[in-house]
Amino acid sequence: MMSLRKTILSNFLEDIWNRGLEDKLSEYLAPEYVIHHDPGDPWHGKTLDIDGFRQRLLVSRAPFPDQRFDIQDMLEDGDKIAISWLWQATHVGELAGIPATGRVIHMSGLTIYSFSGDRLSGHWQMVDRLGVFQQLSAS
Amino acid sequence: MMSLRKTILSNFLEDIWNRGLEDKLSEYLAPEYVIHHDPGDPWHGKTLDIDGFRQRLLVSRAPFPDQRFDIQDMLEDGDKIAISWLWQATHVGELAGIPATGRVIHMSGLTIYSFSGDRLSGHWQMVDRLGVFQQLSAS
Repeated sequence: MMSLRKTILSNFLEDIWNRGLEDKLSEYLAPEYVIHHDPGDPWHGKTLDIDGFRQRLLVSRAPFPDQRFDIQDMLEDGDKIAISWLWQATHVGELAGIPATGRVIHMSGLTIYSFSGDRLSGHWQMVDRLGVFQQLSAS
Repeated sequence: MMSLRKTILSNFLEDIWNRGLEDKLSEYLAPEYVIHHDPGDPWHGKTLDIDGFRQRLLVSRAPFPDQRFDIQDMLEDGDKIAISWLWQATHVGELAGIPATGRVIHMSGLTIYSFSGDRLSGHWQMVDRLGVFQQLSAS
């Protein structure tokens, strides 16, 4: 059976990132959420409150509204959970100067999430941004 | 105190990747080592025996002989350990068609290692290859 925190993280990815249910952010997030490390993310190194995270969610999902994270593995140890994931989405809006291509883009990555009680309080992440760029710019 | 497997993984990174002690590979590796996922690595998706891993080690370390992994976090759950890491190395040999620049390159990433008993049997990894490429090609 999945631990409570693994269940919370799995629901967070489904509700927030896959479905974009921004009204549920206050159920999942601690008052301060720290993006410890996330190269390429405009919020790398920043501390966000719930409204700041909502802004990040809206901007990040805008080019990829049908995006889907599929968790491959979850490892829980102390106050943290590491996940490996695959992601796919249709590119329907401008991203980093590249207009919508209509292509289905695939990405993968790993994230370590930190918890404060039963709320998410930050992450350390690496995504395959070179792979995404290659798919968007391929002729 | 660190668990046995966390200690083994920490020693593996130090002995094998930081110091290049290829003669110690047989102490750390299971007979088959599976590179489940590692975009950009020439051995992505392959299963290696110890000689195959030695070849990967030699080729990978050649442009960066003073390379150093510094573990940031370790999470152990079941038969797996996830780590986040920083890496730095001086670029002294050809890499993907780019001749030695003499630059000190910084990289970061996350890896989930699988164990079989006290031996490493594979990994799922994401490294910031775009960041490396940008540092190597900057004018």
